Amino acid sequence: MNVLGKKPGRVVDKPTNPMVTPLLNDLYQFTMAYAYWKAGKQSERSVFDLYFRKNPFGGEYTIFAGLEECIKFLANFTLTDEEIDFVRDSLPGCEEAFCDYLRGLDCSDIEVYAVSEGSVVFPKVPLLRIEGPVAVVQLLETPFLNLINYASLVATNAARHRFVAGKSKLLLEFGARRAQGPDGAISASKYCYLGGFDATRHVLVLLLVNVAAGRLFGIPLRGTHSHAFVSSFMSLDEIVDKALRSSDGKTTCEDFVSLVQTCLAKIQNSSSLSGIFSETNKSELAAFTSYALAFPSAFLALVDTYDVMKSGIPNFCAVALALNELGYKAVGIRLDSGDLAYLSTEARKFFCGIERELNVPDFGKMIITASNDLNEETVDALNKQGHEVDAFGIGTNLVTCYSQAALGCVFKLVEINNQPRIKLSEDVTKVSIPCKKRTYRLFGKEGYPLVDIMTGENEPPPKVGERLLCRHPFNESKRAYVVPQRVEELLKCYWRGNADEAREELEPLKEIRNRCIKQLENMRPDHMRRLNPTPYKVSVSAKLYDFIHFLWLNEAPVGELH
Amino acid sequence: MNVLGKKPGRVVDKPTNPMVTPLLNDLYQFTMAYAYWKAGKQSERSVFDLYFRKNPFGGEYTIFAGLEECIKFLANFTLTDEEIDFVRDSLPGCEEAFCDYLRGLDCSDIEVYAVSEGSVVFPKVPLLRIEGPVAVVQLLETPFLNLINYASLVATNAARHRFVAGKSKLLLEFGARRAQGPDGAISASKYCYLGGFDATRHVLVLLLVNVAAGRLFGIPLRGTHSHAFVSSFMSLDEIVDKALRSSDGKTTCEDFVSLVQTCLAKIQNSSSLSGIFSETNKSELAAFTSYALAFPSAFLALVDTYDVMKSGIPNFCAVALALNELGYKAVGIRLDSGDLAYLSTEARKFFCGIERELNVPDFGKMIITASNDLNEETVDALNKQGHEVDAFGIGTNLVTCYSQAALGCVFKLVEINNQPRIKLSEDVTKVSIPCKKRTYRLFGKEGYPLVDIMTGENEPPPKVGERLLCRHPFNESKRAYVVPQRVEELLKCYWRGNADEAREELEPLKEIRNRCIKQLENMRPDHMRRLNPTPYKVSVSAKLYDFIHFLWLNEAPVGELH
Repeated sequence: MNVLGKKPGRVVDKPTNPMVTPLLNDLYQFTMAYAYWKAGKQSERSVFDLYFRKNPFGGEYTIFAGLEECIKFLANFTLTDEEIDFVRDSLPGCEEAFCDYLRGLDCSDIEVYAVSEGSVVFPKVPLLRIEGPVAVVQLLETPFLNLINYASLVATNAARHRFVAGKSKLLLEFGARRAQGPDGAISASKYCYLGGFDATRHVLVLLLVNVAAGRLFGIPLRGTHSHAFVSSFMSLDEIVDKALRSSDGKTTCEDFVSLVQTCLAKIQNSSSLSGIFSETNKSELAAFTSYALAFPSAFLALVDTYDVMKSGIPNFCAVALALNELGYKAVGIRLDSGDLAYLSTEARKFFCGIERELNVPDFGKMIITASNDLNEETVDALNKQGHEVDAFGIGTNLVTCYSQAALGCVFKLVEINNQPRIKLSEDVTKVSIPCKKRTYRLFGKEGYPLVDIMTGENEPPPKVGERLLCRHPFNESKRAYVVPQRVEELLKCYWRGNADEAREELEPLKEIRNRCIKQLENMRPDHMRRLNPTPYKVSVSAKLYDFIHFLWLNEAPVGELH
Repeated sequence: MNVLGKKPGRVVDKPTNPMVTPLLNDLYQFTMAYAYWKAGKQSERSVFDLYFRKNPFGGEYTIFAGLEECIKFLANFTLTDEEIDFVRDSLPGCEEAFCDYLRGLDCSDIEVYAVSEGSVVFPKVPLLRIEGPVAVVQLLETPFLNLINYASLVATNAARHRFVAGKSKLLLEFGARRAQGPDGAISASKYCYLGGFDATRHVLVLLLVNVAAGRLFGIPLRGTHSHAFVSSFMSLDEIVDKALRSSDGKTTCEDFVSLVQTCLAKIQNSSSLSGIFSETNKSELAAFTSYALAFPSAFLALVDTYDVMKSGIPNFCAVALALNELGYKAVGIRLDSGDLAYLSTEARKFFCGIERELNVPDFGKMIITASNDLNEETVDALNKQGHEVDAFGIGTNLVTCYSQAALGCVFKLVEINNQPRIKLSEDVTKVSIPCKKRTYRLFGKEGYPLVDIMTGENEPPPKVGERLLCRHPFNESKRAYVVPQRVEELLKCYWRGNADEAREELEPLKEIRNRCIKQLENMRPDHMRRLNPTPYKVSVSAKLYDFIHFLWLNEAPVGELH
């Protein structure tokens, strides 16, 4: 017991962003908390579901992300005196006793059941079920939605980009500068990694990936240089320290600049490569040489500052050949403009030409990275056209979720004081599914998930090998019998107040990422395709179906015709 | 002088978001800094321009925002030992002496000239001109872009919504739950306010606006309740404490619930209002009554949980009438679904009917708030159709900038060591304008801005009354003579290292907001219209034009035809 007479709680790290406090909230959550408190209802046991209604990006699946941050928020939920003063000042006529109530508030009476982070999830099925005193749960709504909506959206976007790029390509997140604010940048890096992006598979690939996110979440980072670096050089004369030790440390080339120039002449004199270019840009050559002197074992150059084929590629190859003579292997190039299919193919030809004519093994395998406003469509189009790109750097379209900038998760009351509640709407897709529920994923013979089913809390769980009726929650004609070969309960306890037992541990990001990749691979392919994917089935038990419709009729007003 | 032998610097608050540190960066900024340092170039004096190439949302103007956060970032720029360790580990072969260099790094050698925050700005004209040691300026690129891109985008989006809604409507930002992360929510609130949103003009309007943003930036906050609050009630029996003191404090109504029921009966019995509805939903009535008991002077109810016209409006009116009898004035209603034009008109009729039939002065002036996926188009459509909405709550589409989720600000080197630099591209719109420049806005006889012009740093400034040739930077046939009636220099010094003199102060948000509103009002109307707006002219001086094209020819490779 601590000084407050409470059991010492479970210790969980603070939210990644220190701005995630109970005040990251809509004011109406506080006005409602006050109204509940005034009515003496603040401690009534309530159950809320957090779910979305429609998969994003025209697809039929979503990746669930953001749970860890929600739990960190819960575990550290407390209002400071200064914050309470502000709330008081914002509520007209607020009584002092309410401030006392806020002062003692924490999440020790809250229970959170959730789908495991990184899971493939579907509309209407709760991602979280939150139980506790209604006034407190209400204060969780806005922060939870904020922490889950974007996280799940951008993880899904990353997974979709991975799907179209294919497993063998390197996918790099480039979006820090265009993200919607600092946190957008940091959490985008995290959740893109979760959704299947990698900073590198090849050890030496240096590319730009957000630094802060790497620091916080242990995501591999890689960097290169920008156009400004290239144009900051005027000529090779600028390079003062020209010495470069060989890779094995045994010899030193005293004039690497001359070596680069010799290599450039070699390329110019080779029969099949000459003619493509004449004079290359010397400030670019100086920039590449200088960058190679700084990172001889990680040389990756941006080749489109002046002209890719007439200047960037020959300059790059000259430096790469010079490095090669000292035992280093250059990593490759980045293309950031122009016709990426054409340029990557031409670049590959040039590299292979050098490998062949100048007898440099593996020179043709140089890594070609492409960026410049890439998205699902452009990557797909490049694939159809044919290209030689090994790595895609995707920025704006990925992190801002440009093609659909928001996921519409909602947070609905489904039970209070053991009374099931329903939210009606003229739009059937907006009617909520009442009751404290359990949810299961049923798998078929081939190992694919077949259907998700929601049941009342006390119904017996679906059993392997036993026939079960799965009903569409709102369309009476849509139903199917299923004999599951495997049953997985989806909602697991991630938070049970201060109790440290009987709840899931928060997992490392890498495990969450592995779950995501594995579950995506295990989906039936027709749910995953980009064009006209088949919707995955989401259902309720027969018993829950009947109850929903009983409650619906009960609550809906009867019209009168005059 | 402090211990480091430096003059004590100007003290500026830290960035609003504590995650805004030098590590909020692309790794390649650090690899470049290292390469500059290795080449001994790290201190070369460089000039970079930050600008965008295209106005967002299909419009012809943009609001500049985010400057204050950039200056806060600059002023507090320092790398901790832990951060330096991480950078070292991320750079292959990083020398220890580079870490020492990083350790001493700050922005005391940096100068920032910027357009005033809240200004109306246009493509290609620098928003910021940043000068200083090239390795340091490079480390500012990603954070500056991150802090300005979204801020300017969402401020512009807010201004566009204000334009279409008209001056007299109340505009409320509702987006915390759908924003792209916590910071997206907080900065959206700030920059929407800057762009012309208000939390309230009417003192008692209680609506949901993000709390944390209000705390940090002093934006007025208002709240109401949600559907969950309504469905958390079962019946009027739940209300235990039924007493309500009258507004003047002189009397107490011991049974406010009965008073509400009496009022409901009055409405039901009135000739013109009966017939519209029969039985209203009793849990809704209980929720409204309870909310009114908590906030008698700020009663604003969400009326669409069950049925707007058959239940929500009559229930609201019953409670509002009861409050009226005790001397309170209800604020109004919120509609969150359905046909907002129709429902707002019907609600207004109902309110006016009560004012007329039951003789309740001003009852018809009840505030009608509308929300539910509103955006520029839907507000415009509502205006064309006719409606009775007084206040719009705009969420997802506003804060995520759903119709265009990113602004493409770039950061380009324009001069180094007094040598102008140009970035070429096959796409002419991507060619950068070289040189350290000054920029001016020229105003015409009618007071409207006519054109922005960029000149070389040392050219004489445009003079009032003197004819001046303004040239399109890239299209030789586009040019015009202008005789300005007023000339405004756009770039002002906001940061000059540690020097405290001769630079602009950071302004309070309210002043920035006033500038924004004033400048928008002062634009020629054809630039502002939603459909086919006229582009505002952006130009360069004749001298700068000639220089750009000289440099261009100089740098571009000459093709060879074979």
